[in-house]
Parts: sequence; structure tokens; C-alpha cells
Amino acid sequence: MIYNVMEQIMIDLFDEYRDRLGMKCTCSRCQSDVLALALNKTPPRYISQQDKAAYVKAEFVDKQEMTTLLVKLAECSKIVSDQPYCRKSGVAENSVPYLYR
Amino acid sequence: MIYNVMEQIMIDLFDEYRDRLGMKCTCSRCQSDVLALALNKTPPRYISQQDKAAYVKAEFVDKQEMTTLLVKLAECSKIVSDQPYCRKSGVAENSVPYLYR
Repeated sequence: MIYNVMEQIMIDLFDEYRDRLGMKCTCSRCQSDVLALALNKTPPRYISQQDKAAYVKAEFVDKQEMTTLLVKLAECSKIVSDQPYCRKSGVAENSVPYLYR
Repeated sequence: MIYNVMEQIMIDLFDEYRDRLGMKCTCSRCQSDVLALALNKTPPRYISQQDKAAYVKAEFVDKQEMTTLLVKLAECSKIVSDQPYCRKSGVAENSVPYLYR
């Protein structure tokens, strides 16, 4: 089995700062869109043994590295807030958003 | 929930060509190491709705795109074959391989 450790790092950071990112909508679809977009802007760190995730996480204890990820989350929150694709937004459900380009 | 569509694309490609990649060891650890390394060299394509994976997969029907991924798999098969970290290789189990740099 393989795991991209950046997924969990980004999810944890998002959970911590979600309320301060100025998202217009915080439904599960919009939250997932922010996470997916931010991860698409972040080099992946796949590993083959889940119990070794700490080796990668240790690199992100560094404040500068975390700030870089947080900036990505803020940028992606703005993109999704400016053009949301959730049901509340009224966009046709079968429309193809930026993630699938 | 979020998914990196490249994971399934790479796994499918690996399943198809595994026997022709010249891997010295094909244990599950070595196979996972090849996949993890190859995905670390590939820009992720996260999506927020699994049923939309086809939009991303459609881009990789293109032969040139698939060839690029196959070249990455071949390079990573060589890296893992040259320096395997599985039990058979005799490397100490707690050694830290290239994936956790």
C-alpha cells in the first residue's frame, strides 16, 4: 500500500486554520475542493509503509515549510470561494470545475 | 473525500507492464517502493468526487502521456532493483530508505 503523507499534513493544517481562511461556504464539497486544489499545488511525498509517515512529517515541523502550505490553503480557499461548485452555489451539478481540467 | 487520480493510473500501468520492467525482486514491498517513487516524480491530480476520475483519466489515453509515466516506472524499478529495502535484501529493517529523505 502507498500513502501520500502530504494529504494528512494538509488535512491537519486545514482543520487547524479553516475558520481563519475566510471561506464563503464551508460545506464538505467546498472543503474537499480546497484540499484537492492545494494538494495539486504541492509536490507529493508518497511512502510505502504508513508507520514511517513521521519521517516525512518531521520535515514539516519547520515553521517556514508550514507557512508555505498555509499560503497554498489560503490561495485555494479564495479560488473556491470566488467560484464554488457546491449545491448551494447554484452551479449545474454536471458542470466540470477547475479540478478536472 | 479527496483522491489522487494518478495513483490508480500508475497502479494500472504498473500491473500491465510489471513483468517487463526488469525488477530484480517483485515482493510487495519492492512493488510499493517503485509505485511510491514514481508517484513522487509525477504531478498529483487530486479530485473531490471519485465518480469524476474519468475526466482526468481521459487525458492519459494519449499515448505520449502514458509513455512518460511508463518511463518513470522503468527508472524507479531500476532505483529499487539497485538498492532494495525489502527483507530479502538483507538491509536492516529500521534503515531509512530514499522515500523518507
